[in-house]
Amino acid sequence: MRNAANADTASLHNRQWLLKQRPVGALRLENFEFRQQEVPQPELAPGQVLVRNLVFSCAPTMRNWMNDAKRSYRTPVALGEPITGPACAQVVKSAHPRFTVGALLVGVSSWQDYSILEPDNTPVPVITVSSDIAPTDALGIYGLNSLTAYFGLLRIGKPRHGETLVVSAAAGSVGSMVVQLGKLYGCRVIGIAGGRAKCEWLTNTCGIAAIDYKSTELTTGLSERLARLAPNGVDVFFDNVGGAMLQTVTEHMAVHGRIVVCGQVSAYDSDQPAPGPRDMMLLVYRRLLMQGFVLGDFVDEISSAHDELMQWVAAGKIQRHDDVRNGFVGLPAAFLDLFSGKNTGALLVKVANVT
Amino acid sequence: MRNAANADTASLHNRQWLLKQRPVGALRLENFEFRQQEVPQPELAPGQVLVRNLVFSCAPTMRNWMNDAKRSYRTPVALGEPITGPACAQVVKSAHPRFTVGALLVGVSSWQDYSILEPDNTPVPVITVSSDIAPTDALGIYGLNSLTAYFGLLRIGKPRHGETLVVSAAAGSVGSMVVQLGKLYGCRVIGIAGGRAKCEWLTNTCGIAAIDYKSTELTTGLSERLARLAPNGVDVFFDNVGGAMLQTVTEHMAVHGRIVVCGQVSAYDSDQPAPGPRDMMLLVYRRLLMQGFVLGDFVDEISSAHDELMQWVAAGKIQRHDDVRNGFVGLPAAFLDLFSGKNTGALLVKVANVT
Repeated sequence: MRNAANADTASLHNRQWLLKQRPVGALRLENFEFRQQEVPQPELAPGQVLVRNLVFSCAPTMRNWMNDAKRSYRTPVALGEPITGPACAQVVKSAHPRFTVGALLVGVSSWQDYSILEPDNTPVPVITVSSDIAPTDALGIYGLNSLTAYFGLLRIGKPRHGETLVVSAAAGSVGSMVVQLGKLYGCRVIGIAGGRAKCEWLTNTCGIAAIDYKSTELTTGLSERLARLAPNGVDVFFDNVGGAMLQTVTEHMAVHGRIVVCGQVSAYDSDQPAPGPRDMMLLVYRRLLMQGFVLGDFVDEISSAHDELMQWVAAGKIQRHDDVRNGFVGLPAAFLDLFSGKNTGALLVKVANVT
Repeated sequence: MRNAANADTASLHNRQWLLKQRPVGALRLENFEFRQQEVPQPELAPGQVLVRNLVFSCAPTMRNWMNDAKRSYRTPVALGEPITGPACAQVVKSAHPRFTVGALLVGVSSWQDYSILEPDNTPVPVITVSSDIAPTDALGIYGLNSLTAYFGLLRIGKPRHGETLVVSAAAGSVGSMVVQLGKLYGCRVIGIAGGRAKCEWLTNTCGIAAIDYKSTELTTGLSERLARLAPNGVDVFFDNVGGAMLQTVTEHMAVHGRIVVCGQVSAYDSDQPAPGPRDMMLLVYRRLLMQGFVLGDFVDEISSAHDELMQWVAAGKIQRHDDVRNGFVGLPAAFLDLFSGKNTGALLVKVANVT
């Protein structure tokens, strides 16, 4: 929150997690700085809303926003400013006709108790949320990661009944929704994840084949497993990881296969970009499509996607897969768990209750 | 042509260029062997046609067919067998209802005077050609390369009026058609080619901006030229070259850009495959599409594409761009010119006249 010049009535107790230094290589706790202070209630310009953040979602792409501008599509977090990330928040004060006091919303906010948002002026849409939906669900099963999975798989991957779908980071917040949507569409789904716990979740709860890339040398081991599990090739690859994983799966794509380039988590926590396929002639001979996307491209379809997801959840066809933590102070530590493979599903940190 | 057991009437004088040894690295004259012999007229099985080859087209992808099987989507040429390549040929004898004696056709044939084709059993379609069309035009302006340009640009690149189109190997047989189609669709076209002669052809005859990659260091030089010529980014990149050129142009793509992966000529004459982009996150942030294709995917649309191309040629909107050589004996030497940059446009070798 900016330091507002004109005080309103009561002041606000505002805790913040700031970007202390840009991460070089792996993200560390030292990159963050905690601050708390009493700030006056701000005056709002037309179109602004003051919100109290209730739940933060830790998403891999936030790591990119902490880098310098070059490799991101949005303005990076400035040094000394709060970390930006998706949140479910409640409107405390409003100068925007669509957002009334008390309403819940989801959008990119910042790691502090109170933030000022400008819903009409953000690259990622700010969505109003029904009060029937719990704030954790607004970021979890109906959140931006689920929507990313929904549009990436259905609009770019275009899975058809009986096709083989491979998902990397399959137990993650995006991947776990892709896996479930793939099953719903009648695909043979193979999930790649790191570690036994995640793979057991994929096999036992989701009922799909799982490849533990940590138990196998990434290139040869993964390649051999894919050859056995997908002998006719991979029709759709939903890739959250990139690097050697993308390169290896590309070599197993079937003719007319589609590669959904959602993220490259292998490169986020590194200063090296993740390269593309080793042999581009594979794209020609097998007529492969590779396409990147961001959720912002599908703003106009979010409302209908939400309706469809809610029907599937009500029918028991899609399950929650959340890892809910508690407490503002633990935000950076929770975020670090994303990159060390210590969580499965959407990593959510609850910092306040609905009032 | 196979050595047929049952003689018909007169024997045929058949010259051949055979694959003597698989090329390792650069293609050389030593990879080819010349042979000529009298062979009896063959008996044809149902569905076969005996043709006299009139014109051969030298296409970069033929270089791949000379490699071992691994990196190609079709069976490679066997050692001691004639080189395979696109040809315009005349039917001499037919056991196929659609191909009558005297008719002209275009398809993948082999480097000899007489070949037996099985039109219903080939990965690349065999097309009948109107006798109004000259055999060189059947392989040139209406040939497989033009059709490759047509489908790749219009179905995958989907150029729109006012967009910026970049074409690599722009003075080649595919590229020169892409350039002309791009202009026809109202694009701002930038051609990349090697050498002054090709670039002058692009500038003076086609009226487009040209980048001579031989006059400039491939990565930094090309990047600087693109930044100047396409300050708002590249909407469509039609890539025939791959490697460092693909990597550099990818970094200049505009949001929602499309990369048509047609060929990777930089890798054909090498034992190393051509890799993909350096940073796959560019595909995400800029929502890029990369897609490979082969002409065979569009068989059903070839006839209507031909009609459209003929109308544009008749209206003077598209010009021939052929490099026509003469003589069967010079086939390998002509083919080598493709890789040393010594030709512009479709490289055609006329070996016989229509009778």
